[in-house]
Amino acid sequence: MKSLKLYGKRDIRYEEATKPAIEKQDDVIVKVKAVGICGSDISRYMKLGPYEEGMIFGHEFSGVVEKVGRAVVQLKPGDRVTGCPALYCGKCESCKKSEYARCEKLTVIGSTYPGAFAEYVKLPAENFVKIPADVDFDAASMVEPSSVVIHGLYKTMMHPGAEVAIMGSGNIGLLAVQWANIFGAKKIYAIDIDNEKLAIAKALGASATINPKDGPVHEQLMTLTEGRGVDVAVEAAGSIVTSAQVFSLCKKGGSVVFLGIPYGDVNVERFYFEKIVRNELKVYGSWNAISAPFPGKEWETSLQFMASGQL
Amino acid sequence: MKSLKLYGKRDIRYEEATKPAIEKQDDVIVKVKAVGICGSDISRYMKLGPYEEGMIFGHEFSGVVEKVGRAVVQLKPGDRVTGCPALYCGKCESCKKSEYARCEKLTVIGSTYPGAFAEYVKLPAENFVKIPADVDFDAASMVEPSSVVIHGLYKTMMHPGAEVAIMGSGNIGLLAVQWANIFGAKKIYAIDIDNEKLAIAKALGASATINPKDGPVHEQLMTLTEGRGVDVAVEAAGSIVTSAQVFSLCKKGGSVVFLGIPYGDVNVERFYFEKIVRNELKVYGSWNAISAPFPGKEWETSLQFMASGQL
Amino acid sequence: MKSLKLYGKRDIRYEEATKPAIEKQDDVIVKVKAVGICGSDISRYMKLGPYEEGMIFGHEFSGVVEKVGRAVVQLKPGDRVTGCPALYCGKCESCKKSEYARCEKLTVIGSTYPGAFAEYVKLPAENFVKIPADVDFDAASMVEPSSVVIHGLYKTMMHPGAEVAIMGSGNIGLLAVQWANIFGAKKIYAIDIDNEKLAIAKALGASATINPKDGPVHEQLMTLTEGRGVDVAVEAAGSIVTSAQVFSLCKKGGSVVFLGIPYGDVNVERFYFEKIVRNELKVYGSWNAISAPFPGKEWETSLQFMASGQL
Amino acid sequence: MKSLKLYGKRDIRYEEATKPAIEKQDDVIVKVKAVGICGSDISRYMKLGPYEEGMIFGHEFSGVVEKVGRAVVQLKPGDRVTGCPALYCGKCESCKKSEYARCEKLTVIGSTYPGAFAEYVKLPAENFVKIPADVDFDAASMVEPSSVVIHGLYKTMMHPGAEVAIMGSGNIGLLAVQWANIFGAKKIYAIDIDNEKLAIAKALGASATINPKDGPVHEQLMTLTEGRGVDVAVEAAGSIVTSAQVFSLCKKGGSVVFLGIPYGDVNVERFYFEKIVRNELKVYGSWNAISAPFPGKEWETSLQFMASGQL
Ligand SMILES: [Zn+2]
Ligand SMILES: [Zn+2]
Ligand SMILES: [Zn+2]
Ligand SMILES: [Zn+2]
Ligand SMILES: [Zn+2]
Ligand SMILES: [Zn+2]
Ligand SMILES: [Zn+2]
Ligand SMILES: [Zn+2]
Ligand SMILES: [Zn+2]
Ligand SMILES: [Zn+2]
Repeated sequence: MKSLKLYGKRDIRYEEATKPAIEKQDDVIVKVKAVGICGSDISRYMKLGPYEEGMIFGHEFSGVVEKVGRAVVQLKPGDRVTGCPALYCGKCESCKKSEYARCEKLTVIGSTYPGAFAEYVKLPAENFVKIPADVDFDAASMVEPSSVVIHGLYKTMMHPGAEVAIMGSGNIGLLAVQWANIFGAKKIYAIDIDNEKLAIAKALGASATINPKDGPVHEQLMTLTEGRGVDVAVEAAGSIVTSAQVFSLCKKGGSVVFLGIPYGDVNVERFYFEKIVRNELKVYGSWNAISAPFPGKEWETSLQFMASGQL
Repeated sequence: MKSLKLYGKRDIRYEEATKPAIEKQDDVIVKVKAVGICGSDISRYMKLGPYEEGMIFGHEFSGVVEKVGRAVVQLKPGDRVTGCPALYCGKCESCKKSEYARCEKLTVIGSTYPGAFAEYVKLPAENFVKIPADVDFDAASMVEPSSVVIHGLYKTMMHPGAEVAIMGSGNIGLLAVQWANIFGAKKIYAIDIDNEKLAIAKALGASATINPKDGPVHEQLMTLTEGRGVDVAVEAAGSIVTSAQVFSLCKKGGSVVFLGIPYGDVNVERFYFEKIVRNELKVYGSWNAISAPFPGKEWETSLQFMASGQL
Repeated sequence: MKSLKLYGKRDIRYEEATKPAIEKQDDVIVKVKAVGICGSDISRYMKLGPYEEGMIFGHEFSGVVEKVGRAVVQLKPGDRVTGCPALYCGKCESCKKSEYARCEKLTVIGSTYPGAFAEYVKLPAENFVKIPADVDFDAASMVEPSSVVIHGLYKTMMHPGAEVAIMGSGNIGLLAVQWANIFGAKKIYAIDIDNEKLAIAKALGASATINPKDGPVHEQLMTLTEGRGVDVAVEAAGSIVTSAQVFSLCKKGGSVVFLGIPYGDVNVERFYFEKIVRNELKVYGSWNAISAPFPGKEWETSLQFMASGQL
Repeated sequence: MKSLKLYGKRDIRYEEATKPAIEKQDDVIVKVKAVGICGSDISRYMKLGPYEEGMIFGHEFSGVVEKVGRAVVQLKPGDRVTGCPALYCGKCESCKKSEYARCEKLTVIGSTYPGAFAEYVKLPAENFVKIPADVDFDAASMVEPSSVVIHGLYKTMMHPGAEVAIMGSGNIGLLAVQWANIFGAKKIYAIDIDNEKLAIAKALGASATINPKDGPVHEQLMTLTEGRGVDVAVEAAGSIVTSAQVFSLCKKGGSVVFLGIPYGDVNVERFYFEKIVRNELKVYGSWNAISAPFPGKEWETSLQFMASGQL
């Protein structure tokens, strides 16, 4: 079958690959219909993270079930599905607590297992979620990044009436804008250095936008919020600069959630670090998109709001 | 009356001061019997924080009630008390929520109001807590730093059976060792570069000690915990180095609490920053020692365990 | 001025009353434009709760500011407002913690203070919230019951994706259906013995309805949820029967919230009581509609969603 | 081997039974050294719950490992162990979330599997926890009921400084008194109709005792607490009367935890039911003693405090 394989930094090749075959009784093979390109794909392409040379790339996808192992009862050929690309070990302390996002050996297809930039993908049956009739394949390939966002937001105090600031208006940041609306946010402040992205954020429901080129972010935000700051600040830019600045956006007692990592040292200047302590912030790290029962309510809930048109 | 006043960096002078007089109807004047020297006093003495030139210094004290304003019913001359040095504005959003530690204008005697290194101190009646017969004045002057510690620990998941690491074995760190025992910690790891302080930590209930001079802290801790890490990591050293290292001590899903600030930029190396996100840590800033009803259960609970001999 | 006064069980009289006058410097007098009739008004009318003979009745209202005391800066004559009818003592332990809904002496206008079935109402300035231009007086008079609902829902685990059952489709129950939608509920099951009310619940966003006359509620619900039950069960009927049945609707680990009381003994049959314990339910009592800063985010958030048309 | 079997209501027989044999590779056979008699054993003996006729009775025990299946590495013959008697299905939604106490098919040895009133018991390896050298077999047979108590208390707001009331001074209630001390309770009020049991509660650390024969429990408690009530009320009596009364013991905003069920209808009089709602209580049902990783930290933590002599 056709596939895209990663061979090294900025070295992706379009090559033939062996079509996967059912080996274990819970294996499911899916014909890929749509694939997304993740921020983490771009990072891996540019800087290389964990990967195996020549591995098929990509992990955000949807498709149609082609073949199922004999123990699989919940899926049958022809079913429209989205795939959760995460594979957990099942044996570590986190897995024993069903905290799969915290698995010591968590891996994702596209790095050490064959990925989704291919005609067919194979994963265990439990990694697939059926998609409703009114969600198309393109949308369904976005369920993974959407689930990354809601996995993080569930940790915060985001509730109807909340004021929210979102660092970054890339793929994850824009999804965060939409989710903040779904959570009932009163005001959503989108922050990015790219005015075109900010315009999209506005169109997707941001109440106001902030471009750091126009002045310090926290000063602009304090003006917009009449000195209050926000209840929840979301780090969705993944840069070493924003990962420090994000601490300056909250009200006292507010919460900050990190949806990703900047892959670099983060120098938190005294001004920003003191905010954590003096403002008694709650800071949450969030990793991956999965919970229990696997792959977690993040997936069903993403599909719920894709079907309703709110995502 | 005799007093110690702060005039500038490393400039404290022993001088006469006017004895305070009852002015407001809830004023209470206390004859000072014991005064503590806080880490924050030393910081202010060395580096100067907010202070007014020539202000009487010091804020951790105990004493005997000398005189009370006419609206004061809960205290009378002769009562043995400890004093909460914090003064809140009563008007900001935090005060309206009774979250006094988050007051926008929180101040402490010894900086902009006359402090405790004097024969007499004046504070509103609500700032004093009576001390039980079996707690002496020296112990009672330690209620403030003890309350700083428990104010922070209440935010964490510290419960009977918890494993705990404490960065720093100074005054606050040693109190944290004792409090961890009171919370029912299973194992307490004390960390400091001073072996004498570590010996005191051991004597006060630490299960094991770690000196960063013997190797990277997280490596030593992982050896001691057989790779698990701890449930709760407490930052009580207040240095720019430990404030980054503390993120490497927790189990996945664990919590980190900052009891103080390092008054400097904190460079969080990639290795440490990723721990927040990949390990889905919960990080809590903690400020001051007060809650509602003012000055908060921190104070009564400190006295409870001083009376029982556990502090 | 014209008014309706309560003189006893089922004894309301249309009478003249003295128009209120500014006495305290934070007093505000409002000309009433719309008044709601609360379930608690009907209870008090039928059974009598705490009230003073001849007191002006009613507590859910909106109107226009007529006159303000001299300390009032945030309101001026002509402002369109909704009124929070609750008065707290400011002195009890709960008030000292700013937990006003738990005030030991909480009272509401219309029982021991003059109420809203009158041409003018007087309350302290802090009890009024300005209404946005796109919310009319009729809607604004519903902010109080709406705030009662959200005050309770904030206590639960209601989040996007939740399954929710709501006992009762009266005023409070129907507001709970709308709020569950705002919180992002996946499925909302409305329960009432009156099919007309159920039809309204359906129109307001309930996914399915259950009439107890068609069979045991929990059996119908388990059929609809394929045996799962719901994440959150809301008691909004206020009867002694539903107050026991509500325990049978949740998943294991789910939460139940009581938005009102049935004014009678609740016989919780063994079948229902065991659900609390065996299913490890979390049961929350919820009282009134207020929090801090007074009157609480319940009020602003109700107005936010009235303005957006979702309430 | 010798054994006690349950044949019906009040019909236990001392009979021969077949000694268990290793069948599955994770089976472990233990020679019983000590067995406890649980309140639930007495209930089952008197009233019969789920059981199979002629099944070996009893479920609280300790002993020495006799034989292990070939996949067992963490245990070897001669190891001193306590046994967790619970068996979960591993397939239901709760098990998929590792919430074993909420398993849809949770069972316990001594009802449908052979129990501990026998010379030997067989269970999966993961059900055994090694006991420290300084914990004897008698104490170790009490780990199960101790774990029942802490499983419930972990759900509450019990923290150092808490005021606690405990309904019932039977086995579970007395363990709750000891655990409340370990959690750092400031005051512990033990409640029972049997003065001898109350004397034991006092000796184990209760601050004061209440006998309902001396007057309404809540009135006695309010006198003792100067009208405050407690932060946490623990239902450990398991009667239909105390299961209603327990709601009257808390402060506003306090929490109530049920450690067992009364096997009967609970008539919650209006006075008690209103406490749930008006006082905004948090009520937690607690079931069994297990969590994840199985059998849960309840077991290790019980052994920690048995070794320290606090249990
Ligand atoms: Zn992705
Ligand atoms: Zn794992
Ligand atoms: Zn929430
Ligand atoms: Zn201090
Ligand atoms: Zn303030
Ligand atoms: Zn806790
Ligand atoms: Zn009302
Ligand atoms: Zn009050
Ligand atoms: Zn038992
Ligand atoms: Zn199960």
